[in-house]
Amino acid sequence: MSEQIVIVGFGPVAARLVDELLPAVRGGHVRLTVVGAEAEAAYNRVLVADLGVGRTTADALALADAADLAAQGVDVRLGLRARRVDRARQQVLLSDGATVHYDRLVVATGSRPVIPNLTGINPDPSSPVLPAGVTALRDLRDAAVLREAVDGGKRVVVLGGGVLGLETALAAAEEGATVTVVHNGPHPLGRSIDRGGGAVLAAGLRRCGVRVAGNARSTGVEHNAPDGGFSALLLDDGSAIDGDLLVISCGVRPRTELAEGCGLSTGTGILVDHRLRAHHEPHIFAIGDCAEVRCPDPGCAECRNSKGPSGLVGPGWRQAEWLAEYLTLLAEGSAAGAELLPALPAEQPGVVVLKARGMTMAVAGDNSADPWDEEALTAGAAAGRPRLQVAQWADPEHGRYVKMTTRGGVLEGLVAVGVPRTAAELVGLFERGAELPADRSLLLRLDGPDQLPGASADPAGTVCRCAGVSGAAITAAVADGCSTVTDVSKATRAGTGCGGCHEDIKGLIERHFQAVAAA
Amino acid sequence: MSEQIVIVGFGPVAARLVDELLPAVRGGHVRLTVVGAEAEAAYNRVLVADLGVGRTTADALALADAADLAAQGVDVRLGLRARRVDRARQQVLLSDGATVHYDRLVVATGSRPVIPNLTGINPDPSSPVLPAGVTALRDLRDAAVLREAVDGGKRVVVLGGGVLGLETALAAAEEGATVTVVHNGPHPLGRSIDRGGGAVLAAGLRRCGVRVAGNARSTGVEHNAPDGGFSALLLDDGSAIDGDLLVISCGVRPRTELAEGCGLSTGTGILVDHRLRAHHEPHIFAIGDCAEVRCPDPGCAECRNSKGPSGLVGPGWRQAEWLAEYLTLLAEGSAAGAELLPALPAEQPGVVVLKARGMTMAVAGDNSADPWDEEALTAGAAAGRPRLQVAQWADPEHGRYVKMTTRGGVLEGLVAVGVPRTAAELVGLFERGAELPADRSLLLRLDGPDQLPGASADPAGTVCRCAGVSGAAITAAVADGCSTVTDVSKATRAGTGCGGCHEDIKGLIERHFQAVAAA
Repeated sequence: MSEQIVIVGFGPVAARLVDELLPAVRGGHVRLTVVGAEAEAAYNRVLVADLGVGRTTADALALADAADLAAQGVDVRLGLRARRVDRARQQVLLSDGATVHYDRLVVATGSRPVIPNLTGINPDPSSPVLPAGVTALRDLRDAAVLREAVDGGKRVVVLGGGVLGLETALAAAEEGATVTVVHNGPHPLGRSIDRGGGAVLAAGLRRCGVRVAGNARSTGVEHNAPDGGFSALLLDDGSAIDGDLLVISCGVRPRTELAEGCGLSTGTGILVDHRLRAHHEPHIFAIGDCAEVRCPDPGCAECRNSKGPSGLVGPGWRQAEWLAEYLTLLAEGSAAGAELLPALPAEQPGVVVLKARGMTMAVAGDNSADPWDEEALTAGAAAGRPRLQVAQWADPEHGRYVKMTTRGGVLEGLVAVGVPRTAAELVGLFERGAELPADRSLLLRLDGPDQLPGASADPAGTVCRCAGVSGAAITAAVADGCSTVTDVSKATRAGTGCGGCHEDIKGLIERHFQAVAAA
Repeated sequence: MSEQIVIVGFGPVAARLVDELLPAVRGGHVRLTVVGAEAEAAYNRVLVADLGVGRTTADALALADAADLAAQGVDVRLGLRARRVDRARQQVLLSDGATVHYDRLVVATGSRPVIPNLTGINPDPSSPVLPAGVTALRDLRDAAVLREAVDGGKRVVVLGGGVLGLETALAAAEEGATVTVVHNGPHPLGRSIDRGGGAVLAAGLRRCGVRVAGNARSTGVEHNAPDGGFSALLLDDGSAIDGDLLVISCGVRPRTELAEGCGLSTGTGILVDHRLRAHHEPHIFAIGDCAEVRCPDPGCAECRNSKGPSGLVGPGWRQAEWLAEYLTLLAEGSAAGAELLPALPAEQPGVVVLKARGMTMAVAGDNSADPWDEEALTAGAAAGRPRLQVAQWADPEHGRYVKMTTRGGVLEGLVAVGVPRTAAELVGLFERGAELPADRSLLLRLDGPDQLPGASADPAGTVCRCAGVSGAAITAAVADGCSTVTDVSKATRAGTGCGGCHEDIKGLIERHFQAVAAA
């Protein structure tokens, strides 16, 4: 048996799928074609902002080597788009006019940035051409534009108060740019965070040198720079925020037009079932940011709370790993074995983590209720289900804020600003669905002045959230000889995603060598 | 030299003054007359509610022994009122027609309960005659009425959400009565506590079996009991709260009519200067609940923030002690010595402490600002004065709430509910004006599950707040042979006021004997 698999899109999730399918390619069961729109093979898009502020290199971002893959027998086609899918003939028509046959087609087209409707910016969503001095910070060219502004100590305006915008703002400010974050709510992060946490977060940003313009509705951009480029963001109250570069960070939207063009069902993303198959189309799959797992069964309990693509790389990587195994079984002719493969477990509700020098934050779940908000706390407490409870620690003077929203002692929401260890512990408790200690204030001790430095106490806890690697696995790799973060990343994949765990991995490496030295 | 001193009023503060003047009486320098309106000599009015729920005895409340004082040469006149003061002749006219000459007159008439204007209750403030089944819980007869209701498991309605009303309600509920507290704000304690603390406090009261009817405006009482007595408190929304006994706990008002009748200046209370002298009248003094320290100098910084009588016994006792020394010096003919006596220091802003089984609370200062309340926090921060900062811990599920309002790290206000050790520590820090630890959450550890039982850690800290006795003084008394609270009270006066420190004194006694046994 041998099957032709075509992957459209060559981002981090597609790269992982290619990686995992290589044994089947080498074994002759799979003929693999991957089509990437950019000139480069897959690279770590999460770190484009880090590249833009000069904290990493383009080489370090690379997730695939086109020449190496070609040498292993993969048909890599870069700089090409898939124009159309002919489902009847099982063919993909490429932008160079070529057609590629598929037995299985995997759509991994990812997402595109949301470009707000501002005068002076082309609002065509399918192919926005941004004017000079405006970037959505998605690819390597965008990183170079940001790099130039940061190195020149220019004024950078970040439009959008999401976690990516904040991380970009913090990094750019620290590297020397004058940065203003413009967002339209009372505080950054919108409804992901509550009022108290948002206030402490905004104060923390200011303390880190980032200007924050809240409750600001932008209406357009002004192009009065000497080169005709961006010079100011215009607000609806008639004021303007001057700058040399506008970074648009208003979220992303799944790229679904290829799927729509061939009649597949889409919701927010391309609708797929629990086996990542497009609805009613056994030959086409979708993974990563373009895919929305929601099966055709209207009674499926798991899909009822589905919230569309997460926008995080971790869930996409888990989908790629699962799909590689599934497709390998199919290619090997073991359709029965493929059907016996347990479906991919539903992703946990997302945890949003912000890590920057001098500023940490984690939020997850529903944080809307206040401790005294009887109406919100008792809502949905019928049928023997306990009511919500909220415990809250607020110390804005010291940039600290913690909110724990629990039901029956188990977290349903958390906010932790300025308390990195408490945040890590709460995220762990949230993901495990574990019960909190009755005295919630015990959790605050983790960031007390008497706590020893070092990584999270629980070795079973997840350190790399993107690749899903535990502290124990990292420590084992260190014991096996890894002595740098790069070594650990190669051995375990920990640290290959957003990079937020690099300090924790360093801590585990140091701890190991301290223990060895002490023995 | 010998002077005639007349004290009008024979409550706890007058009793202390009598006590402190006894050496001068025995030495022949002072001839002392004390006039009491009640049939009994002074007793501890603070404990009338405890007596009413059967937790103490009338004997234990006694603060003076009329026969013993008479034997020592004091002219004790009980069951008499002072009708009028003739300042020209320096005479007091008593209700039995007698006149008493004075060289120095001390007015210690205390306060009377505020009786709200309700239909069915005589609103004459100077001599309220309360109907059957209604009491303001001021004297021994009131205690007997409450005792009967509690012992009979009757329904007690407490009108007023102040600390005395709450303590009465908690004690009565625990001893078997069905108790409802009716108050007119969103939560008990009015503006002394903030919204969060008030909510946790109200929930704690309910947990202790006390019903709490907030936002309730009472309009009248109903007298449909078989004996024609109280049967219900009527509210302005047309509803009614049924009960067998109404306890009115709506605060007190200084008894000033005697001073007003002879032309002395009054504000909230009888106005006295820093030597407790009535304005422009060197022969008349006032102390305790009827006195308001505010000197005639309009530029006096100390008096600018004067807030009238505290309603607490501690400040009155300190006034009595100071005045006894001053009057003794005068009587001994040492006018110069008396004038050299340092004036009584201004009282600290009041700390309100509630201690009941299963429920503790302390509040002090200004607690109105919330952690995010920029306007309130920065108000008054001009002229180099730092802005206010608020740290807050809220865990309503476990009945805990702490708010620390600081300026420059020093408390300006505190709320502590359900955290007895944290409360004691904060009260100590507040009174000393000491700086808080930078990590405010350290204070929460004092009530953590790993803390050893026992009294407050700081031996220099005040244990008895009424009599102003430190833990070290109590421990010294225990080392000298005191082995019961009664012993300690006799030796140090600790525990003779509100009784709230009795458990702490017991803890210190136990700790001493454990240490002795371990040695």
